[in-house]
Amino acid sequence: MAVPGPGYSITVRVEAPAAASTAGDLTTTVGQVGGVLTAFDIVESHADSIVVDISANVLDAEHATGVTEALDKLPGVRVRKVSDRTFLIHLGGKIEVTSKVALKNRDDLSRAYTPGVARVCNAIAENPEDARRLTIKRNTIAVVTDGSAVLGLGNIGPAAALPVMEGKAALFKKFAGVDAWPVCLDTQDTEEIIRTCEILAPQYAGINLEDISAPRCFEIEARLREKLDIPVFHDDQHGTAIVVLAALRNALRVVGKRIEDCTIVVCGVGAAGSAIIRLLQLNNPGNIVAVGRDGIVTTETNDKSANMLHIAQTTNKNGISGSLHDALVGADVFIGVSAPNLFGAEQVATMADDAIVFALANPDPEIDPIEAQKHAAVVATGRSDYPNQINNVLAFPGVFRGLLDAQARNITDDMLVAAANAIADVVDGDRLNPSFIVPSVFDSAVAPAVAEAVSAVARGEKRD
Amino acid sequence: MAVPGPGYSITVRVEAPAAASTAGDLTTTVGQVGGVLTAFDIVESHADSIVVDISANVLDAEHATGVTEALDKLPGVRVRKVSDRTFLIHLGGKIEVTSKVALKNRDDLSRAYTPGVARVCNAIAENPEDARRLTIKRNTIAVVTDGSAVLGLGNIGPAAALPVMEGKAALFKKFAGVDAWPVCLDTQDTEEIIRTCEILAPQYAGINLEDISAPRCFEIEARLREKLDIPVFHDDQHGTAIVVLAALRNALRVVGKRIEDCTIVVCGVGAAGSAIIRLLQLNNPGNIVAVGRDGIVTTETNDKSANMLHIAQTTNKNGISGSLHDALVGADVFIGVSAPNLFGAEQVATMADDAIVFALANPDPEIDPIEAQKHAAVVATGRSDYPNQINNVLAFPGVFRGLLDAQARNITDDMLVAAANAIADVVDGDRLNPSFIVPSVFDSAVAPAVAEAVSAVARGEKRD
Repeated sequence: MAVPGPGYSITVRVEAPAAASTAGDLTTTVGQVGGVLTAFDIVESHADSIVVDISANVLDAEHATGVTEALDKLPGVRVRKVSDRTFLIHLGGKIEVTSKVALKNRDDLSRAYTPGVARVCNAIAENPEDARRLTIKRNTIAVVTDGSAVLGLGNIGPAAALPVMEGKAALFKKFAGVDAWPVCLDTQDTEEIIRTCEILAPQYAGINLEDISAPRCFEIEARLREKLDIPVFHDDQHGTAIVVLAALRNALRVVGKRIEDCTIVVCGVGAAGSAIIRLLQLNNPGNIVAVGRDGIVTTETNDKSANMLHIAQTTNKNGISGSLHDALVGADVFIGVSAPNLFGAEQVATMADDAIVFALANPDPEIDPIEAQKHAAVVATGRSDYPNQINNVLAFPGVFRGLLDAQARNITDDMLVAAANAIADVVDGDRLNPSFIVPSVFDSAVAPAVAEAVSAVARGEKRD
Repeated sequence: MAVPGPGYSITVRVEAPAAASTAGDLTTTVGQVGGVLTAFDIVESHADSIVVDISANVLDAEHATGVTEALDKLPGVRVRKVSDRTFLIHLGGKIEVTSKVALKNRDDLSRAYTPGVARVCNAIAENPEDARRLTIKRNTIAVVTDGSAVLGLGNIGPAAALPVMEGKAALFKKFAGVDAWPVCLDTQDTEEIIRTCEILAPQYAGINLEDISAPRCFEIEARLREKLDIPVFHDDQHGTAIVVLAALRNALRVVGKRIEDCTIVVCGVGAAGSAIIRLLQLNNPGNIVAVGRDGIVTTETNDKSANMLHIAQTTNKNGISGSLHDALVGADVFIGVSAPNLFGAEQVATMADDAIVFALANPDPEIDPIEAQKHAAVVATGRSDYPNQINNVLAFPGVFRGLLDAQARNITDDMLVAAANAIADVVDGDRLNPSFIVPSVFDSAVAPAVAEAVSAVARGEKRD
């Protein structure tokens, strides 16, 4: 199922004979070993030889070696250097700190730094609220992780998590003009994480928690929301839940069902699954059946954590038990945030008519979407190489833009629902179809729509 | 002594009659009440009236009100609005986080974020040293404060300290291309500050401690230097000491004395004074006499902190006691980092011939430099409106540029001395005179020279 994509793109510099057949030989060879050629640039040309940069997408490190070796084996061809474009763009990091003020002469320095800055400091000391006006706090959030649950990579620690947080910061700026700064913590102790966030909070107007493993993430978020006067948002939970709800709303429009009449199977009860369940519950679903590693969650389930107890007590109204496959029988909607390859087309066939399947496990979904399409009316994944990509990028930039614009002090469920509805509404009726239930991540209308929806709720709540 | 400077610059928008004498009346009035006119811009013009923006430097808030009221009292003149240019440039903060990578299309996203970023994360997880190559760690430092000793303002806390840290970050980028991020801590507990820095350290290649009060700053710096594998530099201590040593070296060239033959009075034994003493001691001074609030520091001094004990045991080789005035008798050099107006010309007259006076208390020096000049051969202050400004900006950008370039894991006394010598050497023999012992803060040769000197030492030590 895997296809080479731009996430693993190599450029191989080769020296080759200046023969008429050379270009054809090189490009054919890349294709023969499964590489996807993306560029062919001649960087040097001599009477009897040329030097060429061959760029290609490959599957993985082994495949990259295979492509390189195949080229090197061609008669007269010598590989000089292999570079990896993903690594190239990471050199030195992906974000930087830049000055918004000119510092060209003494007058600039006297205003931006000493002695002028002292008056600004005094103003904030006298009226702490002025920090939101006179400092970076107005537009700056922290992207906080402990590196314990990074992408699908697991517990890789703070330094290895940094490239993800930098990427997130770049996306925040690109899509919503938010200044986001990575804060990668060298501790995985719940109390230390909470205390560190408290200590860092005065300069930030919001905290985006990221890639912190469950169940610690629930307590960290809840406690921080209580302690701090700035909004705290765990993207793995709520960002995912927002986009899932948006996609589900539009998928239900496609198939002409009401959420009140639907049985929804949510597979995965970690950070994302738990948040999805909670957000769905605010929208009067007919029935939710949660499925964990040990099967359908019931009040008999062994895991008695606060999170699991809450799920057990508020879902599965018919008290069914059994496996994921049992849960799927007759269900209208499957939402998976769990593990790869859990079921096939034959299980989709047991679902209700016009079934909706969101198989969001990354990089390999719970079911191959091609298989799912055989019996489902709408299929979505987390992958960029299929239609209907459920991607948090649709939510988090606009959510924080809205929170900052409203100078919100907290984040509420109503804001999450408003954000989901705003994303869904970007897909108007004319464009809505089974292959287009969520807007493109590059749709520039999304973040402003989300921001407006969130800030409208926030401003309303501030007035109360 | 105070003169209105650009640190307090107001713009008053007035409506005035369109008469021939109006401009003269307005500008004369500003001057009459002591304002320094810097701009006169007509923003609207009508048959019988004009609207003018009058920009002027003033002394303080009271003076600003005085200037505004004087204008408002002129016949037919009405003040519409007063804006403060220092506050205007602070709106929304002085720095921002910007993306270094394009995120225009799916390929960009696949490389800078998921799925491509996962390979970069894995590379760092396998080889943590790669963080210095593939993340912002390569070029990024933290500017850490607890807001306990900000400028001359005292203990104003983390939020009110933020404008200073932002300014510092802007200067780091402007003068040395260093990405510096403010970290304003909402704790003043020594252990918590140390632990928080440890927790934050993995993503930074250096820590610049800033405006942390003595004596806590000594322990915090010492303990962090022991715990972390990145350089830790308290600018209030070492930045000041570097520039003082540079200035002293050149001042001694001007008067033709050797440091080995000089008695140097250092007034102030807090963060800056202690560091100055330590750096001077690496350069074989004839004698150092330290003066604290209670007079000359001797082994009998009441304060028995580790810092004071060290100073008492390593200075004042003739064991004199008494007041600052006593210390000055026969001294070759006075270096003050203490309090305003401690002595006058008559005390300078008691110093040795060709006395050197560095009166660095801010904003008001230990002695009015005009007074000091009556008997001293070389006078320097921390102020920008006198010659020979001793300004840390000459040191910290280049110091960290050098540390980052060498990927240094610590900072040593040899690097501080090298930095001082590099700053001194920027002033070549042709330009050296009593009014030009340090280069201008805008001299673009300074930071690269300091960086090269520091990184040369750092690379040498890494090889050892």
